[in-house]
Amino acid sequence: MDIAIYNTTLLTMQGKGLGIIPNATIGIEDGLIICLGKAKTVDHGKTDQIIDGRNHITMPGFINSHIHSGITLLRGAAQDVPELEWMNKAIGPFIKHLAKDDLIAGSRLGVMEGLSSGTTTFAEYTDNVRDLVEKVYLPWGVRVVAIETINEVSRDRSKLKPTDLYTFDQDKGIAAFKRNKQLFHTFTGNPLVSVMFGPQALDMISLELLKEIQTECQERMSKVHMHIAQGERERLQIQGRFGKDQTTVKVLKSHDLLDSNLIAAHIHDTTPEERELLVDHKVGMVGCPSSISMIDGIVPPVGHYRSLGGRASLGTDQAPGPGHHNMIRELRTISLLTKVMSQDPTTIPAWEALQLGSVGGSKNLGLDKKVGSLEVGKQADIITIDLKKVNLTPEIHKPFYNFIPNLVYSMNGNEVDNVIINGEFIIRDYKFDKIDVEAIINDVNQRATKIFTAAEDDWIQADSKLVDFHRRGYI
Amino acid sequence: MDIAIYNTTLLTMQGKGLGIIPNATIGIEDGLIICLGKAKTVDHGKTDQIIDGRNHITMPGFINSHIHSGITLLRGAAQDVPELEWMNKAIGPFIKHLAKDDLIAGSRLGVMEGLSSGTTTFAEYTDNVRDLVEKVYLPWGVRVVAIETINEVSRDRSKLKPTDLYTFDQDKGIAAFKRNKQLFHTFTGNPLVSVMFGPQALDMISLELLKEIQTECQERMSKVHMHIAQGERERLQIQGRFGKDQTTVKVLKSHDLLDSNLIAAHIHDTTPEERELLVDHKVGMVGCPSSISMIDGIVPPVGHYRSLGGRASLGTDQAPGPGHHNMIRELRTISLLTKVMSQDPTTIPAWEALQLGSVGGSKNLGLDKKVGSLEVGKQADIITIDLKKVNLTPEIHKPFYNFIPNLVYSMNGNEVDNVIINGEFIIRDYKFDKIDVEAIINDVNQRATKIFTAAEDDWIQADSKLVDFHRRGYI
Repeated sequence: MDIAIYNTTLLTMQGKGLGIIPNATIGIEDGLIICLGKAKTVDHGKTDQIIDGRNHITMPGFINSHIHSGITLLRGAAQDVPELEWMNKAIGPFIKHLAKDDLIAGSRLGVMEGLSSGTTTFAEYTDNVRDLVEKVYLPWGVRVVAIETINEVSRDRSKLKPTDLYTFDQDKGIAAFKRNKQLFHTFTGNPLVSVMFGPQALDMISLELLKEIQTECQERMSKVHMHIAQGERERLQIQGRFGKDQTTVKVLKSHDLLDSNLIAAHIHDTTPEERELLVDHKVGMVGCPSSISMIDGIVPPVGHYRSLGGRASLGTDQAPGPGHHNMIRELRTISLLTKVMSQDPTTIPAWEALQLGSVGGSKNLGLDKKVGSLEVGKQADIITIDLKKVNLTPEIHKPFYNFIPNLVYSMNGNEVDNVIINGEFIIRDYKFDKIDVEAIINDVNQRATKIFTAAEDDWIQADSKLVDFHRRGYI
Repeated sequence: MDIAIYNTTLLTMQGKGLGIIPNATIGIEDGLIICLGKAKTVDHGKTDQIIDGRNHITMPGFINSHIHSGITLLRGAAQDVPELEWMNKAIGPFIKHLAKDDLIAGSRLGVMEGLSSGTTTFAEYTDNVRDLVEKVYLPWGVRVVAIETINEVSRDRSKLKPTDLYTFDQDKGIAAFKRNKQLFHTFTGNPLVSVMFGPQALDMISLELLKEIQTECQERMSKVHMHIAQGERERLQIQGRFGKDQTTVKVLKSHDLLDSNLIAAHIHDTTPEERELLVDHKVGMVGCPSSISMIDGIVPPVGHYRSLGGRASLGTDQAPGPGHHNMIRELRTISLLTKVMSQDPTTIPAWEALQLGSVGGSKNLGLDKKVGSLEVGKQADIITIDLKKVNLTPEIHKPFYNFIPNLVYSMNGNEVDNVIINGEFIIRDYKFDKIDVEAIINDVNQRATKIFTAAEDDWIQADSKLVDFHRRGYI
């Protein structure tokens, strides 16, 4: 055996409840889980690396179902502003100054943060996603779902009024679609990479191209991951293009574009009836609670979607605004936000949040045959959590496991001491195996300092609410 | 000089905005701040302990304005249940089994957690608070506001229907009031202890005793810290005792019990007009966002209270339910919850959250001449925060300080590397000076294991929703 974790409490996330097995051992060989179950000892002679799992939870790594990691370099750049200011006035002036290498540096920072808080799969959604896969994810041995952003509208929309319709650039869309298709060839057979199609949003793509993508997706038995019903800006474009009484969901429905291959990010600008329709068509949803509450002041409708029987999972979206790529924090955030939205403290209990962050993610992304739960034959994406931290004390096993709620409501993210992906240690006893953390922090600080300085005039001219805060000494 | 922190970024929390001073030094002698300002160097010969503050924020420690630390031993015992189940069915069966020493052990755990995430003042609200002051706070050198719980109703109310009126036990109330008064004598002249009166809530105390407390409070120039308008249970008692159209705020108003010495915890069951009335009478409020959202599914009306010009601050309440005593997490939680409640992402921006957690707390508790901001002559309650953590990267100083939002939206709590109270190191370079963390964790685990086991039958019999979750393998 390559690795054995013994004398641990397993959360397998399959079978009855959360599949809790106390005093258990799990064994890993050639990247796969080869055994698990009740056993207090392990044959030391036949195992390369042995982890004493006492006072630890051992569970599948978390699955971040929606991340734009590149702009992590802009953490702290844009928050506490009206939603309409966020993109154009607050973060826009900085994004303009990001070069390709800056996005790679930012991605390193964001992925490192995700890994250290227990995420093992990242659904990365960006232009030229191949760059990040080849320069960040694969060199580190991290599992990634590569989603190429496909849109047909020009980047500079800052002079348009919200009701002015975007002009479309077919060539731009076709080039991105081509890059997206190419990913399947590039990464065929790579155990760490899967590929999805990434039409950005219905306001940014033509129905023709969207249908082409759907057909291609069906042939490749892949998924379409798309931002859907994100708010006012999208709604105004859809009404302008398709008619006053139209919405994203209605248009997709009338063109047969709702199906079980579709993963819909956000959907906060939908009616309850539209969410029923999405569930009826077996569309999955991804909620990004920190992002959507910070930027829009809105709770993603994950609770409602689940109550309808829909497939849902969670993502961190991007760092500027929500501030982080820590999936453990997303579990607590979706639970608290859903409780206050429904004025019901029983909604999204701890165990449901844990499902959303692990097995829910793998089912939503179509990876549940590979990862998301601990089962013999699955790929070994496993984390251990140290319960002998002040904020996770006490550890109780009887009459119930108090550490289940504590994982969701008390963890910070820095209690994850081992992270294994595909049977390889990424983090061992709190230390990254291959990653020079300090070098990356220094590189990011240097790049970000340059970018923020270069963007100063643009930022002042854009004159968001933050400029006023700065003048008053608040930021 | 005893201690100097140099080459740091100060958040003084006074003057313009947050009082940000880059490249600054702060000096401490005999427990007091004796100098601060721009200076890159420090005279090494004349200073005992020198901290290099580069890539660090140096700011006043956080003020936890409302904590019941003793029951931290029951972390993870009660959450995700209907509000009416929380006290009687979920946590009640365990509380019954807590002995005096267990509460002390629990308090150690909770205070240790608060300290390590940067809290330097704890407003401790409990029966026999003297025990915790003498056995937890003072031996560790931690600043505490001692509040003795005064109530006149019998502990066992489990057989009453919500509309049955509580019976009052005058002697119980008088004994507690006496203990409360005695605290002033016991701790006179102790620089770390201040004392307040703690009538528990209007449904649990007679107006006669409350008036006596108010008079005593005025004579001692102290404060009355009281739970106010906590929800249905309280409302039904008030209506039963004072009349169908009465509320806690109305009764207090009509008996001249609203004044600037009153600190009202929670107040979520108030109308907007009642909150205006409280603000008009200069009553302060304490919001406990994690606790009230977890247990009641409600957002504390901190945002509204502040918008009316009211005095507000934050507390963690208790661990079972919210899960923690990490004030940094409360800053983010109140901001996010207020944003979604008001559907406005501009409410409680980062700088306002930081004020609520520091200088807002000292003003609300009447400690602002001593602590809560960094000023020459104030007591040296100071923390440093390490910005070279992955989740706080990048650190930007121009065109604005991106670390201000990052402190609130990206911090976990484990980035605090130095904690100084009254000029003494409590934590130095992430390590507790006097506290044996592992011994406390082990002690708590042993005690909690006994208590949870002893309470098993009661817990099953009480039959909260959690019992069903356990049977289904979810906790």
